Amino acid sequence: MTRIDLNDSFARITEHWRPKVVAELNGQEVKVVKVQGEFVWHHHDHEDELFLIHKGTLRMEFRDRVVELGPGQCLVVPRGVEHRPVAAEEVELILFEPSGVRNTGNVTHGTLTAPDGVKL
Amino acid sequence: MTRIDLNDSFARITEHWRPKVVAELNGQEVKVVKVQGEFVWHHHDHEDELFLIHKGTLRMEFRDRVVELGPGQCLVVPRGVEHRPVAAEEVELILFEPSGVRNTGNVTHGTLTAPDGVKL
Repeated sequence: MTRIDLNDSFARITEHWRPKVVAELNGQEVKVVKVQGEFVWHHHDHEDELFLIHKGTLRMEFRDRVVELGPGQCLVVPRGVEHRPVAAEEVELILFEPSGVRNTGNVTHGTLTAPDGVKL
Repeated sequence: MTRIDLNDSFARITEHWRPKVVAELNGQEVKVVKVQGEFVWHHHDHEDELFLIHKGTLRMEFRDRVVELGPGQCLVVPRGVEHRPVAAEEVELILFEPSGVRNTGNVTHGTLTAPDGVKL
């Protein structure tokens, strides 16, 4: 039962698009990640994902719409829904999703595919 | 897929110790709650709980220690562990936990027991 300071967690992240696990509970993980640029279009067959913005502005693209998210705003992307996060400038994101989710979902070997379950 | 603005969510809360669901995913809920004063000692038999501080300072008491949490800090309280949140001044909290958790855990009919699953 240790306090997790998200500002400290983000300060320790040096790469983009590489989520790091900061907490686990009920088979779910809380992850932090810095992102910048355009991610790959993908979906997750079996997992819903929560994106909570810590810093910056994230543009979440769907095939039929776009949702812009700023600090303190969040969005659930339901399983099966294709999406692409885009960040014109660096964004700090908190993710809440089941353990073992591949960041690129159905895109199994993309250049942006990161190892899952890596702890900060 | 609607954007959830946590500042707006907290602005709509008028009671203390009454969690409101703002999002659901993977059998879990994201809740917001304002708290002030001393809660009741309790534990949850089957659920871990994540407390993330949005505003204010929360003192999480355990039987053998105390953890103080400020904005941007979080803590997982594992299932089975007795705890008591205390807030000298009003605190805005974000909770992640499985759907259907009773706020007072094993204390089933306390004066602070709130209905679960209430959406904001």
